[in-house]
Amino acid sequence: MAGAFGFKGCQKIRGPQIRNLLEAKNFFLFDCDGVIWHGEKAITGAAKVVNSLIRNGKNVVFVTNNCTRPRENYMHKFSRLGFHEVMLEQIFSSSYCSALYLRDVVKVRGQVFVIGCEGLRRELQEEGIPCVEEADEPEATIYNCALAPDVKAVLVGHDDKLTFLKLAKASCYLRDPECLFLATDNDPWHPLSGGRILPGSGSLTAAIEVASGRKATVIGKPSRFMFECISSQFSGVDPAQCLMVGDRLETDMLFGSNCGLDTMLTLTGISQMEDAHEYSKSELSTNHSLVPDYVVDTIADFLPAFEDVEEKEEEKEEEESN
Amino acid sequence: MAGAFGFKGCQKIRGPQIRNLLEAKNFFLFDCDGVIWHGEKAITGAAKVVNSLIRNGKNVVFVTNNCTRPRENYMHKFSRLGFHEVMLEQIFSSSYCSALYLRDVVKVRGQVFVIGCEGLRRELQEEGIPCVEEADEPEATIYNCALAPDVKAVLVGHDDKLTFLKLAKASCYLRDPECLFLATDNDPWHPLSGGRILPGSGSLTAAIEVASGRKATVIGKPSRFMFECISSQFSGVDPAQCLMVGDRLETDMLFGSNCGLDTMLTLTGISQMEDAHEYSKSELSTNHSLVPDYVVDTIADFLPAFEDVEEKEEEKEEEESN
Repeated sequence: MAGAFGFKGCQKIRGPQIRNLLEAKNFFLFDCDGVIWHGEKAITGAAKVVNSLIRNGKNVVFVTNNCTRPRENYMHKFSRLGFHEVMLEQIFSSSYCSALYLRDVVKVRGQVFVIGCEGLRRELQEEGIPCVEEADEPEATIYNCALAPDVKAVLVGHDDKLTFLKLAKASCYLRDPECLFLATDNDPWHPLSGGRILPGSGSLTAAIEVASGRKATVIGKPSRFMFECISSQFSGVDPAQCLMVGDRLETDMLFGSNCGLDTMLTLTGISQMEDAHEYSKSELSTNHSLVPDYVVDTIADFLPAFEDVEEKEEEKEEEESN
Repeated sequence: MAGAFGFKGCQKIRGPQIRNLLEAKNFFLFDCDGVIWHGEKAITGAAKVVNSLIRNGKNVVFVTNNCTRPRENYMHKFSRLGFHEVMLEQIFSSSYCSALYLRDVVKVRGQVFVIGCEGLRRELQEEGIPCVEEADEPEATIYNCALAPDVKAVLVGHDDKLTFLKLAKASCYLRDPECLFLATDNDPWHPLSGGRILPGSGSLTAAIEVASGRKATVIGKPSRFMFECISSQFSGVDPAQCLMVGDRLETDMLFGSNCGLDTMLTLTGISQMEDAHEYSKSELSTNHSLVPDYVVDTIADFLPAFEDVEEKEEEKEEEESN
């Protein structure tokens, strides 16, 4: 649609428009960082929004490119931050989906060499995927180290213990054209406090792509695969009835577009309205897939819609009791 | 020119053709790894070729993307492997040229954050460029580490002690748009024995380019800058009288083309004839700049040309003495 400024999409919505949208959709996909929380702090009102959606019978899932923890840890975090209605089955992280891809799609036979945090490795092991054990050899170099003989996939995620040796090993394993090359996600960087940034999986993947001359298959957003995981675990998921809510145009909005979902940008995270307008005005038509259909300042803007519903329900209850 | 197979360039030359070419040129630029030596072993005949060129009054320089050692160490290596005529002024490494770029071109004021080996840091310091000292803090993370306040350039080279923290620090420094972003070279990988590979500077640079959203200025081949360094240190360098001899199409041949030099591929290193033919047949016309003008099996193929010259000189001497 063409908005007030002639931009396609980017419709800033509020009040009744949000209520209508929430009524029209039955499946809500939320990114986590920058959408429902910032690190260890929930976005004000987010827990109430999520709990209300669930109590109102909506399907809610969380689709995160954060691959550093297993889903169990997410469960604890949701609970700790007040999202009491969330269950394990609603959490789709790029580490969990990477494990599903390796187990169910490519049915990997052999070990996986992982560049990533302990959480990624644990998630794989929980799905029965063997990972190469990293020996603790401070003197090892790529000239003299042992390479495992049966590595059938290299999986790259965020790894704050990355070393040159890990990069070199991954590149060597990928010399074998039968060894698969996967990335949990392609996020270039993540914001930290004080203006600092954290290189993301996309940064490490780029290094290995250059060294190996190969291109990684990306599991996380914006690739469609996470939506396929959701569709296979929930029955009757209809893209037309889904809303993807996220804070990053290049991952969340593109993911929604790639899967045929309506998309909503929330301005509590990385991307801002200007960024969306830039993509909207771009002459490169593929950039238009990064433009959100809707924009809200925060998902707390959903709250009045529930208050209406709750009021209506209260009214209804009152009427019925009269 | 169109060769026997209809390919532009790629002329495999021998005997008299090589002699004619050597006579026509007065300035010879050699890559090192894969051209005059493999690691610690000189290519058979290479030292004799280089020494003969120099004794015959030709200008010879070495143009290497290897940024791991200062030029002094190269001097020792040349001498150790029998290249006795080579002097410090003939060695142009990407680390030395990076130092020149920082000192003379951008006249950097402030410290340089270096991702690279000790040799790169030493080369910079010899040209008076201050580098950020890396504190040895095993517990430091990008969340809590100190960042130097006056970093005006990030320089990325080959670094076998790369850590995630170094990547993250470089990315943070590059948030400042006034902080320059340089790469010693863009080599993606280097061959090791046993089919292993070593990720090159280009691999590490790619990681930081993604994390910072910026593009590095490349100092080494195929960028023209190293030729500018040579031209400024030798008087009267005429591109038409130069021959660039190398083993890698993407760096050496492209460098020669970029600088308007005739190019020669030697088959003792990375690229092979088929690779050159692939680029030659490419529909992408920019790929034609990677096609060598001439090809030899090894620079030892130059030797008969000198034997002729030496014989002629001997004949001449005999004639004169008669």
